[in-house]
Amino acid sequence: MKILEQLYEGKAKQIYKTENSDYVVIKYKDDATAFNGKKKAILKGKGTINNKITNHFMKILQKNNIPTHLVKEISDTEILAKNVKIVPLEVIVRNVVAGSFSKRYGVKEGLSLRQPCLEFCLKNDSLGDPFINSSQILALNLAEKEDIEIIKTYSLKINSILKEYLTKLNIKLIDFKLEFGKTKEGTVILADEISPDTCRFWDINTNEKLDKDRFRQDMANQMYGYEEIYKRIIEN
Amino acid sequence: MKILEQLYEGKAKQIYKTENSDYVVIKYKDDATAFNGKKKAILKGKGTINNKITNHFMKILQKNNIPTHLVKEISDTEILAKNVKIVPLEVIVRNVVAGSFSKRYGVKEGLSLRQPCLEFCLKNDSLGDPFINSSQILALNLAEKEDIEIIKTYSLKINSILKEYLTKLNIKLIDFKLEFGKTKEGTVILADEISPDTCRFWDINTNEKLDKDRFRQDMANQMYGYEEIYKRIIEN
Repeated sequence: MKILEQLYEGKAKQIYKTENSDYVVIKYKDDATAFNGKKKAILKGKGTINNKITNHFMKILQKNNIPTHLVKEISDTEILAKNVKIVPLEVIVRNVVAGSFSKRYGVKEGLSLRQPCLEFCLKNDSLGDPFINSSQILALNLAEKEDIEIIKTYSLKINSILKEYLTKLNIKLIDFKLEFGKTKEGTVILADEISPDTCRFWDINTNEKLDKDRFRQDMANQMYGYEEIYKRIIEN
Repeated sequence: MKILEQLYEGKAKQIYKTENSDYVVIKYKDDATAFNGKKKAILKGKGTINNKITNHFMKILQKNNIPTHLVKEISDTEILAKNVKIVPLEVIVRNVVAGSFSKRYGVKEGLSLRQPCLEFCLKNDSLGDPFINSSQILALNLAEKEDIEIIKTYSLKINSILKEYLTKLNIKLIDFKLEFGKTKEGTVILADEISPDTCRFWDINTNEKLDKDRFRQDMANQMYGYEEIYKRIIEN
């Protein structure tokens, strides 16, 4: 399918129009950003790895009846995806305390939660992606009740599927961020990516960080997490 | 009932032990604070008015099958109340956009919400009373699911009852904060206060502020809101 003009450029991906308005091409970049864009770098090879890790997870989810935007891989850094209108919410699912959650509630990083928890943030860079709950989303008319329920159900199911899969690879799924989109027909499907940029992965035995926190926290070998997750997935 | 030693002093009230451990005496102060205690003043007569307004609302709610901590009025500034363990959550119910909600989501003050919304904050001054959702409360083991459900149900019912009552007095109920407690027997009941310190009240015709925002925003005649709400309630 012919790739036409760029529709959108985000922090880690570009989206291009195609000849068929039902589809877009998504291209992963090597750009790394953190703290709402305040910290920036290029991590060579990240785009390729994140594309491959994401596609691997999306295929597992599709087999488990989670609809996703992935149509097919085009190149090392590009996929053909269903064209969706992104629901303006970030969904965060947590199994273990880490990052902002630890600071916000004064709870120690590494503590296992009694049960997985789910939170929404309003996707709005200028407001700093504020935390929002279902009742506020409805009151502000940002999404419909049925869509919120589907998104919650899918997100918790995705957590179960990935947690089980990753445990076999000695990877602990700490937390992750999802985004959903709606197709022209109004179906809610999983969009965006699932990668070390959007998940916290720890080694199950050593608690070594295998994700973007190595970049956020200026740790040594910032590509190591991406490479290690990729290696464990491909080898299994 | 004999009043014994002080158990606790909050920003606007003191709590005293009594001879019977099932009951406490609550005394309203004239102290006004805002912005997590950064702004302070004495508003002479506020304690008396807030006590009387709160008791008036609590009695209306009791008649509508909402259990509350109020046992009886002792003096202009004191009540005898059931001794409860406060659930460490502030419950905020909103009908109209105002205050922090307006800034957080970039929505204009005064906009009517599509439906009332309810949010929780974790009561913790040193963490700045952070916003928290039901799923996080459960994951962090801060309350039980049944208690959260009861608190949500009571809070939305209280909103309906007070909104209807206040409309007749030409008062618009913008938003308010509630706190709940658990008795020795484990029953969840309404505690704390319902006053111009904990609610936003606007005149229904002019949108004039009749609450603590007059103090927060350094408006003229900071006692006016308290006095006006009291007058309208007593005259009706």
